[in-house]
Amino acid sequence: MSSSEIDRLIQLLAKLPGLGPRSARRAALHLIKRRESLLSPLADAMHEAADAIKTCSVCGNLDTRDPCSVCADPRRDGALVCVVEEVGDLWALERTGSFKGLYHVLGGTLSALEGIGPDDLNVSGLINRARRPEVTEVILAMNATVEGQTTAHYITDRLADCDVTVSRLAHGVPVGGELDYLDDGTLTAALRSRRPF
Amino acid sequence: MSSSEIDRLIQLLAKLPGLGPRSARRAALHLIKRRESLLSPLADAMHEAADAIKTCSVCGNLDTRDPCSVCADPRRDGALVCVVEEVGDLWALERTGSFKGLYHVLGGTLSALEGIGPDDLNVSGLINRARRPEVTEVILAMNATVEGQTTAHYITDRLADCDVTVSRLAHGVPVGGELDYLDDGTLTAALRSRRPF
Ligand SMILES: [Zn+2]
Ligand SMILES: [Zn+2]
Repeated sequence: MSSSEIDRLIQLLAKLPGLGPRSARRAALHLIKRRESLLSPLADAMHEAADAIKTCSVCGNLDTRDPCSVCADPRRDGALVCVVEEVGDLWALERTGSFKGLYHVLGGTLSALEGIGPDDLNVSGLINRARRPEVTEVILAMNATVEGQTTAHYITDRLADCDVTVSRLAHGVPVGGELDYLDDGTLTAALRSRRPF
Repeated sequence: MSSSEIDRLIQLLAKLPGLGPRSARRAALHLIKRRESLLSPLADAMHEAADAIKTCSVCGNLDTRDPCSVCADPRRDGALVCVVEEVGDLWALERTGSFKGLYHVLGGTLSALEGIGPDDLNVSGLINRARRPEVTEVILAMNATVEGQTTAHYITDRLADCDVTVSRLAHGVPVGGELDYLDDGTLTAALRSRRPF
């Protein structure tokens, strides 16, 4: 039916979230028919991203610069550090345009079931940042899931001897909901009415 | 929030069928986090496909060879030519493994609304093929849509002075349905019970 080049393209496209085997086939065909206008530019963009994107050594964001453009921006308020599970959550909060502090990406949540402990997350990096004198508040913006809230409690305990206020996002985040699926308005409201943890 | 490299990647991914702006963002993040295992291999596969895939000059299939591997296969029955709208339909029929003839890809359907006439489709190529002495049957496998059936009638008229039987897929293809969405069993049954047009 099709060459090994097409099969391989379909196989790799099927690994993208949101694309099953059938939609991967459609996507491959769509790409091959638009070789000049889409397939080659997308391949180039992927190579450029693969070469250029680094993990920020300060906050864990993904960017072409390290420190990332958030950490390097002198207009951001270094007194506030907002802790998120994943880079996608950081991006979701940035899209609201309503937070002017810095971030810290944990890289997941604690999970006994999956064997993910504190050393598998970037917790020690957070504690070190929270000890710096300019940091006055740590906002816990984990998902409103059991794992997210367990992780938030653990981090609150670990921050106990740091001289910072610990707050969390206001209710407004639906129970069981994930940040990256929320609309900007809900996220903005949740940020504004954050309260002590 | 993110670099121009990431923005460009998201923008291009959003042009894939099945991915909106939000799922394109998720796909980009998924890719960037899997630089070695997915992002670079996918970029390579795209470049290889862009370089290697050609349109078959005989049937319109997409393949690394011209004539394509279907047209070049001596075991295929050159007496049967199955006419489809798009390459995706050819692939769908090939996946059933139940058709051993050759194909002809029209490249679309007639559409007064969209200003698509016979010269915009590969109709003359089909007529030339149908005139060759070895061709005895032309199977019209257009979608069961108004445009597909209008196109099938037009082609039947054009084939009137060629010495071929014209048949169509059996009912079994749901009215309004598109070939590429059907399961293999339905397609196989529809092919087996094809009847004179
Ligand atoms: Zn950073
Ligand atoms: Zn061919």
